[in-house]
Amino acid sequence: MVLTGNDTKVLKAGDPEPPLAPGAARIYSMRFCPWAERVVLYAAAKGIDAEVVNIDLHSQPEWYKAKKHPKGQVPCFEKDGKIVIESGIIPEYLDGIYPDSAILPVDPFERAQQRLVMEQFQPFWMTFYGLFVIVKEQLEGEARQAKFRALDGVIDNVEKNVLKHEYFGGSLPGFSDWMLFPFIERLALFSKFLDPPTPFPSEDRWPKLSAWWSRISSVPAVQPYIQPEDVHVKFLEAYKAVKEYKDAKPDYDMGLH
Amino acid sequence: MVLTGNDTKVLKAGDPEPPLAPGAARIYSMRFCPWAERVVLYAAAKGIDAEVVNIDLHSQPEWYKAKKHPKGQVPCFEKDGKIVIESGIIPEYLDGIYPDSAILPVDPFERAQQRLVMEQFQPFWMTFYGLFVIVKEQLEGEARQAKFRALDGVIDNVEKNVLKHEYFGGSLPGFSDWMLFPFIERLALFSKFLDPPTPFPSEDRWPKLSAWWSRISSVPAVQPYIQPEDVHVKFLEAYKAVKEYKDAKPDYDMGLH
Repeated sequence: MVLTGNDTKVLKAGDPEPPLAPGAARIYSMRFCPWAERVVLYAAAKGIDAEVVNIDLHSQPEWYKAKKHPKGQVPCFEKDGKIVIESGIIPEYLDGIYPDSAILPVDPFERAQQRLVMEQFQPFWMTFYGLFVIVKEQLEGEARQAKFRALDGVIDNVEKNVLKHEYFGGSLPGFSDWMLFPFIERLALFSKFLDPPTPFPSEDRWPKLSAWWSRISSVPAVQPYIQPEDVHVKFLEAYKAVKEYKDAKPDYDMGLH
Repeated sequence: MVLTGNDTKVLKAGDPEPPLAPGAARIYSMRFCPWAERVVLYAAAKGIDAEVVNIDLHSQPEWYKAKKHPKGQVPCFEKDGKIVIESGIIPEYLDGIYPDSAILPVDPFERAQQRLVMEQFQPFWMTFYGLFVIVKEQLEGEARQAKFRALDGVIDNVEKNVLKHEYFGGSLPGFSDWMLFPFIERLALFSKFLDPPTPFPSEDRWPKLSAWWSRISSVPAVQPYIQPEDVHVKFLEAYKAVKEYKDAKPDYDMGLH
């Protein structure tokens, strides 16, 4: 493994900032955060050496917001005193400072096509977020069904109009594949505990996207950094309980002992 | 002027596709579209040679949707048979194929900072769009006031937290300055006919942003491509009438004779 520390407990209030040697790279993350996962998988796909440091997002180390991320969010990337935030920005930065393993194409036209795939996902993000709204606002009945129908519609669109090759990036996984991965992963996970379940993956309804999911989740370089399904489902169930009852904080160390 | 054709009438249904010579560049636009304006101003700031072709968005030439933009929107950039769409993507493409006049920094860290400025504008786009909602849904009273208050809040945030130098790009106009320009321009224009008016520019309330507006709208390279205020206000008033009464289409050739 080129990334170390991915499966380590979160640092929390009171914990000191771990030293970072010159030339060493660090990703601040939280194992179940889809935005942080984008960066962890992108770094893993590139094969760069970096240390992952997980952050307790509810009870943060004091130095994190003060020195790393002004909003106290993950992901955050740090190397040689330079800090870059935002899951849509860090990957291009990683390609810039580790150009030999660049995933974004250097050719301007090919690069624009990759950007365009991301633009085409605009309707997906909003609709996917609807699944969290279902949990947060405890939607029932027609309001709940409407969100599921909207989701079906945007997945139909991705299947028919966006996924045109083996991967969104073409014949190999590209920038957009890794940006999308954590969210499609959660679609599949939600099918384990939401009622009605999300029907993804489904070889009947969305054969191309389901085959893509099977392929991309088998890429050897990233597999060690994908949380086991049972652990991830437990985290999401606990997260759902927290949102519903507001009586606890998510268990960011779920599955670690 | 290095850009030709910016102030020409729109092509509409029935009009043939104008030939485009090898090596020549074309921007499909509409003089009052803020997204198209981003690309026109970016190209002007770069000083590239290109021909602007304006498109009637309601009664489009048949070849436009078929061969240029699958959704029939502007902007669209074409050169040597390669077509790139989306106002957030074309500028990076222009920097890629005309690297000598690159506006986006080549240094990965500086480039990430420019991307980050755009991220920080996320709350602005939604709130700015609220002004169109006021017109479209004919909001009155408290609903209308609430949108104006929300707008004040996001402008406050830009003033206090986002604009840190002479320009959003630093000491010179950068990528984010040109992406933002058409929308701040419309903020100022809306103050001419919305009631209550948007109070922008205001040296008292937003001195930094108002000074930025004064500086950026005086950049010599882009000035020929900024629509005169009186023509633009007339277009927006007519657009407002169309939205309210659904009895006409916008006058895309407003101000041309």
